[in-house]
Amino acid sequence: MRIALAQLNYHIGNFAGNLQKMTDAIAVAREQGADLICFAELAVCGYPPRDFLEFDDFIDLAESSIRALAEQSHDIAIVVGAPSRNPVLEGKDLYNSAFFLVDGEVRHIQHKTLLPTYDVFDEYRYFEPAHSYQTVAFKGKRIALSVCEDIWNVGNHNPLYKVCPLDEMMPESPDLIINLSASPFSYQQAEARIKVIRANVQRYHIPMFYVNHVGAQTELLFDGGSVVMGPSGQVIAEMPYFQEAVQSFDLEEVMTGRGPGEQPREKIALIHDALVMGLKNYFSKLGFNKAILGLSGGIDSAVTASLAAKALGAEHVTGILMPSPFSSGHSVDDARDLAERLGMPYEIIPIAPGYETMLSVLEPYFAGRDFDVTEENLQARLRGMILMAFSNKFGPILLNTTNKSEMAVGYGTLYGDLCGGLSVLGDVYKTEVYELARYINRFEEIIPVNSIEKPPSAELRPNQKDSDSLPDYDLLDQILRLYIEGHQSPQDMIDMGMDEQLVRRVLRLVNINEFKRHQTAPVLRVSPKAFGMGRRMPIVGKYLS
Amino acid sequence: MRIALAQLNYHIGNFAGNLQKMTDAIAVAREQGADLICFAELAVCGYPPRDFLEFDDFIDLAESSIRALAEQSHDIAIVVGAPSRNPVLEGKDLYNSAFFLVDGEVRHIQHKTLLPTYDVFDEYRYFEPAHSYQTVAFKGKRIALSVCEDIWNVGNHNPLYKVCPLDEMMPESPDLIINLSASPFSYQQAEARIKVIRANVQRYHIPMFYVNHVGAQTELLFDGGSVVMGPSGQVIAEMPYFQEAVQSFDLEEVMTGRGPGEQPREKIALIHDALVMGLKNYFSKLGFNKAILGLSGGIDSAVTASLAAKALGAEHVTGILMPSPFSSGHSVDDARDLAERLGMPYEIIPIAPGYETMLSVLEPYFAGRDFDVTEENLQARLRGMILMAFSNKFGPILLNTTNKSEMAVGYGTLYGDLCGGLSVLGDVYKTEVYELARYINRFEEIIPVNSIEKPPSAELRPNQKDSDSLPDYDLLDQILRLYIEGHQSPQDMIDMGMDEQLVRRVLRLVNINEFKRHQTAPVLRVSPKAFGMGRRMPIVGKYLS
Repeated sequence: MRIALAQLNYHIGNFAGNLQKMTDAIAVAREQGADLICFAELAVCGYPPRDFLEFDDFIDLAESSIRALAEQSHDIAIVVGAPSRNPVLEGKDLYNSAFFLVDGEVRHIQHKTLLPTYDVFDEYRYFEPAHSYQTVAFKGKRIALSVCEDIWNVGNHNPLYKVCPLDEMMPESPDLIINLSASPFSYQQAEARIKVIRANVQRYHIPMFYVNHVGAQTELLFDGGSVVMGPSGQVIAEMPYFQEAVQSFDLEEVMTGRGPGEQPREKIALIHDALVMGLKNYFSKLGFNKAILGLSGGIDSAVTASLAAKALGAEHVTGILMPSPFSSGHSVDDARDLAERLGMPYEIIPIAPGYETMLSVLEPYFAGRDFDVTEENLQARLRGMILMAFSNKFGPILLNTTNKSEMAVGYGTLYGDLCGGLSVLGDVYKTEVYELARYINRFEEIIPVNSIEKPPSAELRPNQKDSDSLPDYDLLDQILRLYIEGHQSPQDMIDMGMDEQLVRRVLRLVNINEFKRHQTAPVLRVSPKAFGMGRRMPIVGKYLS
Repeated sequence: MRIALAQLNYHIGNFAGNLQKMTDAIAVAREQGADLICFAELAVCGYPPRDFLEFDDFIDLAESSIRALAEQSHDIAIVVGAPSRNPVLEGKDLYNSAFFLVDGEVRHIQHKTLLPTYDVFDEYRYFEPAHSYQTVAFKGKRIALSVCEDIWNVGNHNPLYKVCPLDEMMPESPDLIINLSASPFSYQQAEARIKVIRANVQRYHIPMFYVNHVGAQTELLFDGGSVVMGPSGQVIAEMPYFQEAVQSFDLEEVMTGRGPGEQPREKIALIHDALVMGLKNYFSKLGFNKAILGLSGGIDSAVTASLAAKALGAEHVTGILMPSPFSSGHSVDDARDLAERLGMPYEIIPIAPGYETMLSVLEPYFAGRDFDVTEENLQARLRGMILMAFSNKFGPILLNTTNKSEMAVGYGTLYGDLCGGLSVLGDVYKTEVYELARYINRFEEIIPVNSIEKPPSAELRPNQKDSDSLPDYDLLDQILRLYIEGHQSPQDMIDMGMDEQLVRRVLRLVNINEFKRHQTAPVLRVSPKAFGMGRRMPIVGKYLS
C-alpha cells in the first residue's frame, strides 16, 4: 500500500479554496501512485476555526466539502479531518473527526477523544470527546485513525487525560496508525512531536503516518514537519518545515525502517523561518501585499524590517524614519543605512512640528508641570499617527516592532509604538532579537552592526537608555522566562539566588501591564508560551501586583 | 438549622482582602444566629482567576485561605469554593471544589463535575471534573453540595453534558441542596437562574440555597441575586442585585415555602445598574478614582459620562470637548450642556491646530490625493492623543464610548475613538443606548434632549451622518443581533425577508473588522454574547467576508 501525506496551508473558513487545494493534492498523489491520501485535522475548514464552529451554516459548508471529497475517492482513498455533528442530544453538538472516504462514500468516521483545552487550544469549547473506537479495513490492512492530541497522552509522567485512545483500538490489531494533526510551531515543537510519535510507535509496535498543517493562521504558525515513523521508532521521513508538500510512502518500505530521516533544526533559524512565513501568510490571506513600519535605527525595527522584506519583497515594505527632538544623529543614519542595505523605500518625517504644536495646545492645561511620561508618549503617539495615516492613505499594514521583553514589562506606549496590525517580535525576547539579527547577518551585513552594538534606547528624553528603567536584558529575560514559560513563583527565583526586590518589581510590572497587552496586535507565536490567546490573565487582579 | 448566604464582591488574587471580607461576613452570620455560612464558587481567589491557576504559588495561597477559614469554623460551619489539587497524576491537576469546614477541619470536599467551557468560560482549561459524589451530614441533615454549572444540565432540551451530578447524590436522600455559583450577569440571567433552580428543585423535591458572586471583574459583571427556593419551587428570597449582602434563612421556614419572593427586574434598569457597578469596580479594584472621556455632544459619550458620574461622582469625571473643523455648533453646546447638568469638570480643546499641522507634515506625501478616511481618522486620533495626554499627566483612566453596533461593523478609528481603558457601551447596541438615555432622563433631563433627538454623526467630514454609510440603526441592530447572539446565517435572514445585499454587507463588515475588536478595551458584558473573551473569532479568515 502506498500512502500520501498532504501537508497543506489552509485558510480558515475558505471552504472553496481549501477544497481546491485538496483536489490538486489528490491529483499529485494519484501521479505518485498512492492508494490513500491523508489530509490534516479539520482540513476542510482550516485550524483553528474558533467560534465559526458555532454557526450551523459553517458546519453545513464543512459537510459539503466532505461530500465533494467523497466523490473524488473512487480510485484513491482519502483520510481527512472535519467537524461532524453529534446526533445525540446530550453533550456538545460537534465532534472533531477523521473521515475515511473510499468508493465515493464515507466508510468510517473516528472522532477525536483528547480535546486540548490549554494554552492556545479551546477544543472542549466546541467538541464532545469520542466514546467509541474502531479501526478501518483497507486493502488488506487495518488502520487506526487518530486526531492530533489523541497520541499525546502516551509517555508523560503527569498525563493530562485518563485514557490513551489508541489503547482502545489495539484489540483489533491494526497494522498502522494515521494521525491527522494541527500542531502549531514553537521552537521546541518538532523535537517534541518526534518524541511523542516514537513513544506511541514503541508502545504499539506499528508504524505511524503523521500529517500536520503548514502555514500561518494569524498568530498560530504551523511548521508542517509531517513524520513517517517505522515500527521500531525510526524516522523514515520528516517532511519540510514551512512549505507545502505532498509525499507518498510505500508501507512495505516503511516497515523496513529505512529512509532519509530527520531534518536538521536550529532554534534561531526555525524562529526566523517561522516569522517570515507568519508575515507572508498574514498578508496574503488578508489580501494585502504591502507593509509599513517605523524605523528607529534600533535593532527591533531593523530585524522586523528585514523579516518583512524577506516575506513580502523589500520593495513592498516602506520604512518611515521619524526623528524626535531627542533622537541622536546616528539613529537616522542607522535607519537609512538599513533601508538602503535592504533596498526598501523610506521617508524621513521629523515629528518636531507635531510635537511642538501638541505641546502648545496642551500648555494651558499642563503649565508648571514637569516633563514626564506624558511627553514621551506624545512622541510615540505622533509616530503612530503618521504611520497609520500612511496605512490609511496607501493601504499597507503597519507592522508592530515591540519585542517580548518590552511587551512583558509594559515598556511601550499604548496607541504609540504599540500600534500595528501584527506583532512580529512580540514572542521574541530582546536577547533573542540580538540572536536573530546576527542570524540575518550570517552571510552579509544587512542589519547595520551599529544597530546591534549600541545600547538600546527609546530616545524619548535626553540621553535616555533602556537600562535607566529596566535591568540588563540578560537578567530581565531570565526572570521573564522563569515566570512566563516556567510559571515560577518569586520565592522560587529568590531561592535560585536572584535579588528579591528586582524579582518582585519585574513580576509586578508584568502583571500590572496586562491592560496594555489586551489592546495590542496579535503576536506571531514562536515559543511554548506567547502573549495572546494562549496566555489569559485577569486585567483587574491583585496577584504579585 | 439556620443557613447564611454571603453574597460578596471578591477581588481576583487578593487572598488577604477576600479572606478579610469572609471573616467579616462570618461575624455577621454569627450575629444572625446562623449554623452554617455559604460563600460562592472559588471565593477565596475570586472568579475568574484565569491562568493564575497555573501557578503553584497561587494554589498554595488558596490552600492557606482554606486553612484560615477552617480555624474560624468552630461555632459555625462554612461552605466555600476554592481550587484544590488533584492527587492523581492522570487528568488535569486541579479541581474546582466546594469545601465543607466545621470544627476547625475540612469535613468534606465535593468537586465540580460540569465545567463550563463556552462563551466567557474556560473551566476545562484548568479543572478535572468530579468522578465521585457524596453528601455531607450536619446537624441531623444531609446536604448535597454543588458548584454552579452542576445544576445547569437539568431541564434542557439539548443538554451540554451527559450527567446531572445531583442525580448521583440522591441515593443518599439529601435534605437540601447548596449551590456555590459564579454566574455572570446578562440582562436575561436572573430569570434563567431562577428557572434552572426551579427545574432542579422540582426534580429533587428539596430546597436549594444558591449563593452567587456580586461585583465586577474587568468585563464580567456579577449581579448577585442569590436565591433560596422552597421544596415546591417557590422563591423564598432573592438577594439584592449589584450589592453585597449576608442573609440568614431558617430551613424550617424555607420548607413552608413562604417568603418575600422575587425582585422586580426590567432590562434597561438592570443594564444601567450593571454598567454603573462595572465602572465603579474597575476603578476601585485597580486603585483609580478619576475618569476622563471625550464629549462629542452625541448620545454615546453623554450616556457614558452619566454612567461614570453615577459610579465615580461627577467631580471625578472630566469631559474634554474637542471640536474639529467639521463639528457643528450644536455639538459643543450639547456637550457643554451635558457637563453642566451633570456638574462635571470639562475643557474645550479644538483639534484644528494639531489637524492643520499634521496635514502640512503629511502634505508632501499625500499631495494630489483626495480627502478620505485618512483625514477622518487623523481627527479621531488627535482626540485620542489629547485624551491620553491628560490621562498620562493627571492619572484618570480614559473611558471608551463606542457602542456595540459601531464596534460590530468597525465604525470607529483604531487608536482614535477606540482608545480607552474600559469600554462602557461596547455591549450595548445603539438602539439600546437610546433606551438607556431615556432611562437616565426618567426623572429629569440629564442628557440633553438634543443629543438624543439629533441624527447620529461622527462629524469627521462636512455634513456627515452615520446613515450615509450605515443602514438605519433599527435595522442594523436587528441584523447584528440575529448574527451575533442568534448565530443565524445570511440565508436564515434572507428567508425572514431581509434584503440579501444588505445582510451580506453587514455580516462581511462584522467579520472583516475582527482586527479592530482584537485591539480594543475590555467591554462590560451585559448581553448573553458580548465582544471580548466570550466571542473568539479568527482574524485571518474567509467566512462571510
